[in-house]
Amino acid sequence: MTSILLIGAGKSATTLIDYLLNNAVNENWTVTVADMDLKLAEEKVNFHSKAKAIQLDVAKLDELERLITEHHMVISMLPAFMHMDVARFCLKHKKHMATASYVSDEMQELDGDARKAGIIMLNEIGLDPGVDHMTAMQTLDKLRNRGCVITGFETFTGGLMAPESESNPWKYKFTWNPRNVVMAASGGAVKFLQGGKFKYIPYHKVFRRTEVIDIDGFGEFEAYANRDSIKYIQLYNLDGVKTIYRGTLRRIGFSKAWDVFVQLGATDDSYVMENTDKLTHREFINSFLFYHPTDSVETKLAMLLKLDHDSDEMRKVAWLGLFKEEPVGLSKPSTPAQILQHILEKKWTLEPGEKDMIVMWHKFNYVEHGIPHEMNATLAVKGDDDLHTAMAKTVGIPLGIAVKNMLNGNITSPGVHIPNTKEIYQPVLKELEEFGIKCTEKVVY
Amino acid sequence: MTSILLIGAGKSATTLIDYLLNNAVNENWTVTVADMDLKLAEEKVNFHSKAKAIQLDVAKLDELERLITEHHMVISMLPAFMHMDVARFCLKHKKHMATASYVSDEMQELDGDARKAGIIMLNEIGLDPGVDHMTAMQTLDKLRNRGCVITGFETFTGGLMAPESESNPWKYKFTWNPRNVVMAASGGAVKFLQGGKFKYIPYHKVFRRTEVIDIDGFGEFEAYANRDSIKYIQLYNLDGVKTIYRGTLRRIGFSKAWDVFVQLGATDDSYVMENTDKLTHREFINSFLFYHPTDSVETKLAMLLKLDHDSDEMRKVAWLGLFKEEPVGLSKPSTPAQILQHILEKKWTLEPGEKDMIVMWHKFNYVEHGIPHEMNATLAVKGDDDLHTAMAKTVGIPLGIAVKNMLNGNITSPGVHIPNTKEIYQPVLKELEEFGIKCTEKVVY
Repeated sequence: MTSILLIGAGKSATTLIDYLLNNAVNENWTVTVADMDLKLAEEKVNFHSKAKAIQLDVAKLDELERLITEHHMVISMLPAFMHMDVARFCLKHKKHMATASYVSDEMQELDGDARKAGIIMLNEIGLDPGVDHMTAMQTLDKLRNRGCVITGFETFTGGLMAPESESNPWKYKFTWNPRNVVMAASGGAVKFLQGGKFKYIPYHKVFRRTEVIDIDGFGEFEAYANRDSIKYIQLYNLDGVKTIYRGTLRRIGFSKAWDVFVQLGATDDSYVMENTDKLTHREFINSFLFYHPTDSVETKLAMLLKLDHDSDEMRKVAWLGLFKEEPVGLSKPSTPAQILQHILEKKWTLEPGEKDMIVMWHKFNYVEHGIPHEMNATLAVKGDDDLHTAMAKTVGIPLGIAVKNMLNGNITSPGVHIPNTKEIYQPVLKELEEFGIKCTEKVVY
Repeated sequence: MTSILLIGAGKSATTLIDYLLNNAVNENWTVTVADMDLKLAEEKVNFHSKAKAIQLDVAKLDELERLITEHHMVISMLPAFMHMDVARFCLKHKKHMATASYVSDEMQELDGDARKAGIIMLNEIGLDPGVDHMTAMQTLDKLRNRGCVITGFETFTGGLMAPESESNPWKYKFTWNPRNVVMAASGGAVKFLQGGKFKYIPYHKVFRRTEVIDIDGFGEFEAYANRDSIKYIQLYNLDGVKTIYRGTLRRIGFSKAWDVFVQLGATDDSYVMENTDKLTHREFINSFLFYHPTDSVETKLAMLLKLDHDSDEMRKVAWLGLFKEEPVGLSKPSTPAQILQHILEKKWTLEPGEKDMIVMWHKFNYVEHGIPHEMNATLAVKGDDDLHTAMAKTVGIPLGIAVKNMLNGNITSPGVHIPNTKEIYQPVLKELEEFGIKCTEKVVY
């Protein structure tokens, strides 16, 4: 009997828990789902015979440590900044650990100790990061094994709405951590390599330097650049590559409208606004506009950003209710980013029956026998409904499969890892195909 | 005999040292000028009988502490981030201290201990901050003593070129810490209060939200907003005021052209650029532009920022040599802001005989006997030459006068201070008049 402790039963854990419970009998697992909110954990566990739900406040370190000692491995679905206490106890008590989050510097520092302890600390094993690493490395390794020289790699992922649910003018709703969407591309300049030149884009220009990508069978998308593409030269063994670029996909027109918030400074998370508790949506927007005793908020916004009153951008902002005298509804002092997120959640939350969609698209440029080639790889997954979203599937299933392979001895290399090695990506991608999560490759020339 | 230790003999200390030496005989002072660069200190001291120059590396804390114990008071003209070691030794050995820098949180924390120790730690006693606080508080106190209710306060300062030296298209050169000019308004949103509304401007919009100010006898200037004006409500006792705004003056057209660098991300100080040592001016600019195999840097810049090829902005950027294939000349990995500063210093350095100018302008709105009024106050100072600049005078002389009054017992309140109290501003402003540094007030209505 192998026992798994899953900490954090939120939205993103739904499909992961289903996967673990579906495999529990065959694999002889027991699964403990721990959450601050006992009810939430109980709902997810749904009286399964191999599982139990418990209440856990991770700030109570004694309780956290005791729980970890009682299990064979730990999955942390906590917000990224809360992984470290879990990680340190896993190290102390020699338990494997898995997360879907980016490896922080603190996490990376545990690598040496994890190797010594013989434990696996696998991170970035969700969708993006996760499936992107694995599908990219699988194709890159295949090409390199054939003797191809990789000259360029670009990769794009978007958490979007399924076409049948694209009923709002943004063609977008939150299907993942809303805070990450509001803060996307912020926190420093975007960096990438194109045509052998290092390129940098400041945050306030990112959403106006998009490119259009037409994906067979899915139509046109626009892509904006992710933070740091340069580091993937090393992570993917791409020394000497001329182009490396990672981006995020949205439907056409999203970025120009989102840029309204960026230009206003409404995504700033560095200061708290005065009188947060008294703000209305309209006053929130007005805070970023020049003072005028009589000019309307709409006119001041249009003028500041040189928009037509009947532009798509103005229409999208209006649809979100940002010109309404509706109270924001936050009682404690909040940053512009927190207030914006709160307003967006009123409209950008999936309604019953609405379906989301994941699209991932890679572009490989390589030279084979002296001839330049381009190959694309596309992966798309639709959600079943507003709970069993494509996002929950593509984050949860890879994580679940990886856990299975860590426990059954297919993944054995100790240390702090991301899934960029064959040992990890091969078994995970193989089983993912059974769920219809699979790249379709196409040689363009 | 009273001994003064002055640490830091750079450009900004020239007039301060002159002031101290000119007063040394009358006041019975000896002055020690300490700098990392002994030659620089010796030049400034120029064999004066009451002074000596010494070499000091402030990183050698033993030496720093010994020197502080040997003097009666200390003036730190070090870069702001280096004041704290000096401050802690001053506290330990009960020596008064003065700086022209903003009070950091760390400095403010010494207030209680300074009061207990009975020592004065006076900061922000240069031009801006310094003369701005003193001239503002003098007028505000005068109006309030007359029973006026202050409804608005706006203040603007610029370190500019004298009209006869405005020979370059920017009408600007560095007359103060170049790094502060490059980083101006960065590091968070600008905050102010206008017409009773709190307003916020993100960094990337600051240089496009200027206002034009016509100052009697000096012509038109434009003003962009300084970082945080809100905190001056408390510092100047302006509770209930409807408008508070602090800004920086430049000649018309400067901000639009400076905004080119802001829009590009060329003022970013948060990351180091790849291949810094191989960059040319032209490649530096190209790093922020989209990739194209043949389009010129000029055309890509004009297109990205929607500028005409013959616009003032393009002309100003070209005048700085930014389109030249000239090596930047920095050997170690540097941030965009450091590289930009280095390029700007090649052109924006005062030449022999060139004169700078300081302009400060306050706008007071108040109600007296139920009637609303506006009063302006203007202060302008011209430099004598490229060494005895208006900047060095208006920073150094207030500091020198304050030191004199700290030593002769006119300024006595212990603690960490800025010059916003009558005890400090009255003697300093009085003597400043002898140097022609004086506000001219004018009631507009």
